[in-house]
Amino acid sequence: MTTSSEADAHPSEQPKLSKKAAKKEEAKLEKLRRRLEASSAVSGAAEEEEEEDPLAANYGEVPLPDLQSKEEVGEPYTEVGALGEGMQGRSVLVRGRAQAIRAVGKKMAFVVVRERGFTVQCVVTEQEGSVSRQMVKFVASLNRESIVDVRGTLTVPSSPIKGASQQVEIQVHKLHCVSKAFPTVPINLEDAARSEAEIEKALQDSLFLSLSIIISSFHSCPGLGSLDTRLNFRVLDIRTPANQGIFRIQSQVGNIFRQFLLSEGFIEIHTPKLIVGSSEGGSAVFKLDYKGRPACLAQSPQLHKQMSICGDFGRVFEIGPVFRAEDSYTHRHLCEFTGLDVEMEIKKHYFEVMDIVDQLFVAMFDSLNASCKKELEAIGRQYPFEPLKYLRKTLRLTFQEGFKCSRMPVLRLIL
Amino acid sequence: MTTSSEADAHPSEQPKLSKKAAKKEEAKLEKLRRRLEASSAVSGAAEEEEEEDPLAANYGEVPLPDLQSKEEVGEPYTEVGALGEGMQGRSVLVRGRAQAIRAVGKKMAFVVVRERGFTVQCVVTEQEGSVSRQMVKFVASLNRESIVDVRGTLTVPSSPIKGASQQVEIQVHKLHCVSKAFPTVPINLEDAARSEAEIEKALQDSLFLSLSIIISSFHSCPGLGSLDTRLNFRVLDIRTPANQGIFRIQSQVGNIFRQFLLSEGFIEIHTPKLIVGSSEGGSAVFKLDYKGRPACLAQSPQLHKQMSICGDFGRVFEIGPVFRAEDSYTHRHLCEFTGLDVEMEIKKHYFEVMDIVDQLFVAMFDSLNASCKKELEAIGRQYPFEPLKYLRKTLRLTFQEGFKCSRMPVLRLIL
Repeated sequence: MTTSSEADAHPSEQPKLSKKAAKKEEAKLEKLRRRLEASSAVSGAAEEEEEEDPLAANYGEVPLPDLQSKEEVGEPYTEVGALGEGMQGRSVLVRGRAQAIRAVGKKMAFVVVRERGFTVQCVVTEQEGSVSRQMVKFVASLNRESIVDVRGTLTVPSSPIKGASQQVEIQVHKLHCVSKAFPTVPINLEDAARSEAEIEKALQDSLFLSLSIIISSFHSCPGLGSLDTRLNFRVLDIRTPANQGIFRIQSQVGNIFRQFLLSEGFIEIHTPKLIVGSSEGGSAVFKLDYKGRPACLAQSPQLHKQMSICGDFGRVFEIGPVFRAEDSYTHRHLCEFTGLDVEMEIKKHYFEVMDIVDQLFVAMFDSLNASCKKELEAIGRQYPFEPLKYLRKTLRLTFQEGFKCSRMPVLRLIL
Repeated sequence: MTTSSEADAHPSEQPKLSKKAAKKEEAKLEKLRRRLEASSAVSGAAEEEEEEDPLAANYGEVPLPDLQSKEEVGEPYTEVGALGEGMQGRSVLVRGRAQAIRAVGKKMAFVVVRERGFTVQCVVTEQEGSVSRQMVKFVASLNRESIVDVRGTLTVPSSPIKGASQQVEIQVHKLHCVSKAFPTVPINLEDAARSEAEIEKALQDSLFLSLSIIISSFHSCPGLGSLDTRLNFRVLDIRTPANQGIFRIQSQVGNIFRQFLLSEGFIEIHTPKLIVGSSEGGSAVFKLDYKGRPACLAQSPQLHKQMSICGDFGRVFEIGPVFRAEDSYTHRHLCEFTGLDVEMEIKKHYFEVMDIVDQLFVAMFDSLNASCKKELEAIGRQYPFEPLKYLRKTLRLTFQEGFKCSRMPVLRLIL
């Protein structure tokens, strides 16, 4: 979020000016400086026009010195995702981004505040002794994606709230902007979080929809936005509830995988990624120079997993990057991905491996359903999906059955 | 563990022989073949000399067909590390490697069986009806590091056992070799597990010690062995109790780090390792060709961690490989290592970060002491160390104190 960096970046590259040209340039700058002074004087006058607000302490931008580290323990923050109907009437302090701002006349404004993918509607209504008309104006003029501290009382509205994930409202007493965002943000988070059904409905109804961005990865919606914008402004794009959910579930997938295997006597290893030759085959390997000697990026931890088994670890696993110089541009060919790799010795029968894999997947699906309920819901709102169906015990084909349907995958997890 | 691979590896490289030379070669091979036949006939005769053993089913090498996957559920295996005095009198089945074999006359033999770094002493004594003299002979002739299945009864000897980690003995009824090792193994695991004190004592006492390998990484013991041998046969070297312990503790360090941070609201991320420029500075970076375009290996997940924070994840961490093309060959400069990286937003004060770091380390030390007791003991036997001392609450210097002793590290974890 740098502004002047491009202009300042290369001072040495400024062309050397002749004396005359330098004078001309100076005069130009002086003119510009005067114009700027004049305009700021005007805006200053405009500010003075407003009456002084006795309730000015309840809102505004937090001055920089106030943001410095202080040891005083202030009011604790409540997470937006934790706000619920059970907290009705409680006074809360939340910090989040102003995702959407809407003024209703001069006496009222709504701000949807988002924290880690969860959103809550905040209502700012003119009220004697706490909320001034100037405060409503300040709130209405907030830049989207600015970070705000909101203090207020929780209420439960009679009808369900559509524009926010939490079914409560904050009746705002105080609102301060901690970090001001640029006036124009290339992605409107509200729009970026819409589902395809919503977009299509809006298009059919010919309603105006301020679509800045639409994902068109599978179904293309020509003319409505581009995946490029999302990727170019990834830090904005990953703020949508669905993307927040995807990353949190990804984190949990690794965690559950790991916890299950640890409980089964596996140990986690970290194998070298810089190796002297290719791990498997030799075609799709990234080659690099290792201090004058040729080296490869590991396509698989296979060799080192097997060394671990031969080295008496019994059961090992690794979660780490795998590098493949694939030339196929499909969803199933990635140059770099996170591999979840398992290796184990068997005592008697390969069924021992199947038992582990079977229990592993059931444990992962169970745990995800239990611990990532909110995240799955958030994803489902933007990308609707059917809940995953799976058996408690994975079906195993006998040799005869497997022979008959040899074109079907043997380990069928989803029916 | 391949044998004939070198001889077979390059059939195309065999020199083409003239007809005469070929005949000569053939005659030579024929001679060799006859000699081999003769010697095997002799050894066959020697075997015949022994009486047939009615108890032959209690020992021997398991024939290959018997090792094939079978669905029958046999006797369950007990882990060597789980064997304890509380199990006295119980009949057990263990599988492990024959680490040391010692015959005492013709009627008795000891085998130390090792599984995942834990060892148990097994006693094979001639006994009518169960253990024959031939069985004792078979056991005494086992190759070290062979994998054996041992069935027997647990007894607790009156004096402590020095040569094994478990303080019980197995009175063997049956012993089968599941996988036979080569007669000569380049590393003797018993010696590889000795501490420097043991080695020095043996040298001072001028006792004979069959030292095949000694670690001489810090104190050099010239002539006694080399680190190279250990590294060249890493799969053997990592079988020592200390090395098993080191890898298991490493696994737990990652696990505790992760669990603590997850409980504090962090999420785990996996950042790209193939990036377009260097992450920090530009000197110590590995460069590679990414499909015709220049790319670098990430020296740090810094940029992507910060993107995650800017992307509203709040608190993130990563455990993954970090690549630095360091030219300094010290213990503190590695070209590839596993980084434990944390990034978090602060609400008010940088103390929030210090609180997390403080609690994180205390949690890690506590958990390691609790869950890795056996592993720490195993390491301590080979590399003696003092238990780690740490405060429940890390000391923090005030500004004045910090100013006074500005040359001391501010965050002092170990006093």
